[in-house]
Amino acid sequence: MTRFHLPADKIPTAWRNVVPELPEPLQPPLHPATKEPVGPDDLAPLFPMGLIAQEVASEPWIDIPGEVLDVLRLWRPTPLVRAERLERALGTPARIYFKDESVSPAGSHKPNTAVAQAFYNAAENIHRLTTETGAGQWGTALAFACRQFDLECKVYMVRASYDQKPYRRVMMETWGGEVVPSPVDQPDHPGSLGLAISDAVRDAATRDDSHYSLGSVLNHVLLHQTIIGLEAKEQLALAGETRPDVVIASCGGGSNLGGIALPFLDDDEIRLVAVEPASCATLTEGRFDYDFGDTAGMTPLLPMYTLGHEFVPPSIHAGGLRYHGDSPIISNLVKAGRMEAIAYPQGKTFEAAIQFANTEGKLPAPETGHAVRATIDEALAAKEAGEARVILFNYSGHGLLDLSAYDDYLHGRLVDA
Amino acid sequence: MTRFHLPADKIPTAWRNVVPELPEPLQPPLHPATKEPVGPDDLAPLFPMGLIAQEVASEPWIDIPGEVLDVLRLWRPTPLVRAERLERALGTPARIYFKDESVSPAGSHKPNTAVAQAFYNAAENIHRLTTETGAGQWGTALAFACRQFDLECKVYMVRASYDQKPYRRVMMETWGGEVVPSPVDQPDHPGSLGLAISDAVRDAATRDDSHYSLGSVLNHVLLHQTIIGLEAKEQLALAGETRPDVVIASCGGGSNLGGIALPFLDDDEIRLVAVEPASCATLTEGRFDYDFGDTAGMTPLLPMYTLGHEFVPPSIHAGGLRYHGDSPIISNLVKAGRMEAIAYPQGKTFEAAIQFANTEGKLPAPETGHAVRATIDEALAAKEAGEARVILFNYSGHGLLDLSAYDDYLHGRLVDA
Repeated sequence: MTRFHLPADKIPTAWRNVVPELPEPLQPPLHPATKEPVGPDDLAPLFPMGLIAQEVASEPWIDIPGEVLDVLRLWRPTPLVRAERLERALGTPARIYFKDESVSPAGSHKPNTAVAQAFYNAAENIHRLTTETGAGQWGTALAFACRQFDLECKVYMVRASYDQKPYRRVMMETWGGEVVPSPVDQPDHPGSLGLAISDAVRDAATRDDSHYSLGSVLNHVLLHQTIIGLEAKEQLALAGETRPDVVIASCGGGSNLGGIALPFLDDDEIRLVAVEPASCATLTEGRFDYDFGDTAGMTPLLPMYTLGHEFVPPSIHAGGLRYHGDSPIISNLVKAGRMEAIAYPQGKTFEAAIQFANTEGKLPAPETGHAVRATIDEALAAKEAGEARVILFNYSGHGLLDLSAYDDYLHGRLVDA
Repeated sequence: MTRFHLPADKIPTAWRNVVPELPEPLQPPLHPATKEPVGPDDLAPLFPMGLIAQEVASEPWIDIPGEVLDVLRLWRPTPLVRAERLERALGTPARIYFKDESVSPAGSHKPNTAVAQAFYNAAENIHRLTTETGAGQWGTALAFACRQFDLECKVYMVRASYDQKPYRRVMMETWGGEVVPSPVDQPDHPGSLGLAISDAVRDAATRDDSHYSLGSVLNHVLLHQTIIGLEAKEQLALAGETRPDVVIASCGGGSNLGGIALPFLDDDEIRLVAVEPASCATLTEGRFDYDFGDTAGMTPLLPMYTLGHEFVPPSIHAGGLRYHGDSPIISNLVKAGRMEAIAYPQGKTFEAAIQFANTEGKLPAPETGHAVRATIDEALAAKEAGEARVILFNYSGHGLLDLSAYDDYLHGRLVDA
């Protein structure tokens, strides 16, 4: 309920690249056919050189272009909020802070990278971007970003969501995006994220004017999201805190988690916590291996925790967390023991989300509800231990377009996992 | 895109009561049966004395209770934003500012008065509030406010919205509200706001533990909303502006308009503009007369512009502007020529709303789209005149739960009026 605003002129002007400082060197992506490390030329049909360079960059800081900052300033710096009413309801000595990424145009952290990706593509004279989207968070962010740089945007939306959840489709169309249900060639198939990635990659690979854009997993995506944690660091100082004791975020592909956590990586005393759904427990129950990013096996093989690229997660409400794999950076940190991972069944996350809505007045996205759950449990553990821990979590998105999930929870229709 | 944040300790601590300073004395409400002026005792079955006193208060400032401020601080002070990207798109020398009330828990300005009303009722040991809601904005705000003061909340929701727009019902239920479709005794009737008011008033009048709560029109409601304009005044000073040349807001019952405009009333050089839908043009085409607030004629008669209490407005998407009457305070100002009124068909308001979404990244509620339309036209008039006018408008709510209206507009299904 106390908000800490970073002045507009204190917005970070460089992203933080932690790849050179990871506990173990990051293994390279491998070509899906040859199984050899992929080079820039392999990626060029899909990505602009500006982003390919960031994918393998070795410098610790990378300047944010002014054109990108101009758009980010529409909603950034985002507020850091101390959740005092939640603290009181829990009776905890912990001090709970959250970074409010829900204030962006798309209502989540996703536009932080969408804007950067649209910029680098436009700068290399690409006229059109393709992507996939599940419930629509990422597609909405990219449609908004494309509009800012006069790019066309084509979104392959998982058919089940396209049919049942039209609201985010309408947001994409409002910003001029073209949205089609996926898989395009099987009109009776409900679709999946892996299939939609295949559709979007195939489209971009076969048109010279088009590139493909991915909303999570890759190094450059997490890089763009580090602006979250960089701002939070400054704002915690404004709040009089030396450091957080623990940083918490939900984890699907890893971008909101990477965004808030990576800027705190170099302080070993800060715990970093990934929260995932029990029904798609990539980090806590998957294996570390090379695997494809999509179902059809068209993407490079990535070194990551995975449930197998053919794993079909149950249809839980936190669509953004239903991914078989995970960011190589996040996987590296978990494997090395630098980052913890924890999984929750969704019923417990909605219970936490409603406690948050009742005390702080904000309705979290189901994905964000996972971080809220872990934060509440951490605050209760601090109470048990009698410790005034400083907890920082990423409020990665609002749940205003996910109210049917709350409806199911409130009326006992939630299929728990 | 530049945001001006008022520090948390500068939140206004008193509301501004302009009733004693209106151009003409405000005529009293009349009893629906006797047609005599109503006294406090007539209102006591429905409202707490704290609010009845505010309804007839003669002091210019009324302190905001600390318990109310504690809840308002969850989202207040709200940002004042300069819409520089919209200005550039219009090529106008005008400076456009908007007050962002969409950041509240319910996504609109409505909680400003809901919280105050819940507090005064709880302070007089009322345990339960009833109200009506159309699309759900007001019911959502009251459900949130009741939760903060441990009151039960029963919402009579216009049946057509209850059936077709479940999202805001779910928000009300998330905060513990009980929502039933209205009219309660005619299960096949699509309902109307006037009928739902009758349902809610009847419920409250027949139970000792219950009061009724109204989200607009009445003096105390506009009083609570003046916090918007009071904050905006301070923030314009932070932005280096002496005063706005014109203040613009959409007008249904008049509360968001009153909230932003009334604190500027005493400066005659500032134009105040009400924007309403052409299909429910109360101020621009109605008559000034005593009329009932509801369809059944159970409420007191109010002196106001009205289209007749039996007028059934067409089912336009800006549900919050579909009211046959208007606030007596607003009506008084328009009648005296101190406030202008303008009406738009809804197609032009959606066109403006999408231009706003494309430039500023925020999707306005259809009601708010009316203010955006008038603001754009004012900025274009300033361009025509070569004048650097300062325009302030109230961004009264977001459109995230109104996306079906955008869908209709984008796909040519909008029935214009």
